[in-house]
Amino acid sequence: MPVSKLSAYTAKLPYAYAPGMYPSHALLDEKPLCAKRLLLHSSALESEGAITLQQRCEKLGIRSEIADTALSRISRKENCYAAIVFEKYTDTLSDRERHIVLHQPSDMGNLGTILRVCLGFSFADIALIRPAADSFDPRVVRASMGALFSTRVRYFDTFEAYRDEYPAHHLYPFMLDGMPLHQMREIPNEPYALLFGNEAAGLSASFLQVGQPLRIVHSERIDSLNLANAVSIGVYAFAVLSSC
Amino acid sequence: MPVSKLSAYTAKLPYAYAPGMYPSHALLDEKPLCAKRLLLHSSALESEGAITLQQRCEKLGIRSEIADTALSRISRKENCYAAIVFEKYTDTLSDRERHIVLHQPSDMGNLGTILRVCLGFSFADIALIRPAADSFDPRVVRASMGALFSTRVRYFDTFEAYRDEYPAHHLYPFMLDGMPLHQMREIPNEPYALLFGNEAAGLSASFLQVGQPLRIVHSERIDSLNLANAVSIGVYAFAVLSSC
Repeated sequence: MPVSKLSAYTAKLPYAYAPGMYPSHALLDEKPLCAKRLLLHSSALESEGAITLQQRCEKLGIRSEIADTALSRISRKENCYAAIVFEKYTDTLSDRERHIVLHQPSDMGNLGTILRVCLGFSFADIALIRPAADSFDPRVVRASMGALFSTRVRYFDTFEAYRDEYPAHHLYPFMLDGMPLHQMREIPNEPYALLFGNEAAGLSASFLQVGQPLRIVHSERIDSLNLANAVSIGVYAFAVLSSC
Repeated sequence: MPVSKLSAYTAKLPYAYAPGMYPSHALLDEKPLCAKRLLLHSSALESEGAITLQQRCEKLGIRSEIADTALSRISRKENCYAAIVFEKYTDTLSDRERHIVLHQPSDMGNLGTILRVCLGFSFADIALIRPAADSFDPRVVRASMGALFSTRVRYFDTFEAYRDEYPAHHLYPFMLDGMPLHQMREIPNEPYALLFGNEAAGLSASFLQVGQPLRIVHSERIDSLNLANAVSIGVYAFAVLSSC
């Protein structure tokens, strides 16, 4: 497809974009076979980052093109100097590893940051319960700093569909009721999944029944924690328990 | 000043905007004397949120106006239904309470989220070392969900200027070198301050000398943590140690 035909990203496209040097390198590290085209901005051709990207792509047989207009159109940012067009792919979650389950997350930036912090604490299997933000959206890829390509992300139409497929995972829903997270002293059951509600509504009371609910105790001076911050605290606390 | 003269926010203005219902209520709760004008969108006049805001403002002698155009101009978002214009103010930090020190943070959304999570774990005194994002920017106020008005935020030209004013605070710089945070078993010195570098560069090696450096141990599969997520983990861990 000629570069001039590349559209701004929408969920319906069969391809997506890794915008920026860091996400582009991450894509080549983790999913080289999905990479189809390197787009470079004419003003960045001499930069070290662009040269390295071009060399890596050449070795992999991926064509490079100067595409200033396409870059600004697809990234929706003015300062995007490189992007790789890649074919979308699907992942399967590991049934032995620990999972993160996000129930209907809607914020793109939050989702990207969450993927990054999850990978940072070795939670590489992420279940997203629909309706949910699109993990291939360039805003997610960018905010994840490429962590999207190192995690396994899979969508489920309902929480029950997830549950049916991974019945062995012991569930820890993060809720406003529940045992204080900081009182956990060990993780009694493996494998397990940490479950978080969405930005606006959290998890409904029905999730009290699905496992061991946990609560991040915070001051009453705020209404709730930002979702990405709550996930950060959750994965950090469990990573510490795992290493003890 | 007539509503038509209200400018899009810039750091030079003597006034700022609390955009949205939640931040507007937080402003009235915490800084009612600074509130000058309530702006409402004509399409939201019948909403419960708008009616409550209007009632509160009336009691406080604050004028309300319908200001559709001004709202979209000042908030830079299409779906802003209410905002309060307020006079900027300056804060002084408590010299007895624990502090958060952010060294040259640049991202508005991050700063807002950080204020919210800090308040959530009872860190209400925030020092910002310049150059730093403007805490009165509507993007910060919005992301803070109004937590800006419940925290004491003060700017310093240099880290040394902060240090000179609060020499008693024991410092914990968060760095790539340092003792693993999860190995801390108690907080030996009060008062104390947690110190974080900015999004791009972190803290330079010179900060190794200023206190007890700490490190959030994470997988090598990510380069670094998002600043707001790192602060979340830091304030959570210290809040837990304080409560033990």
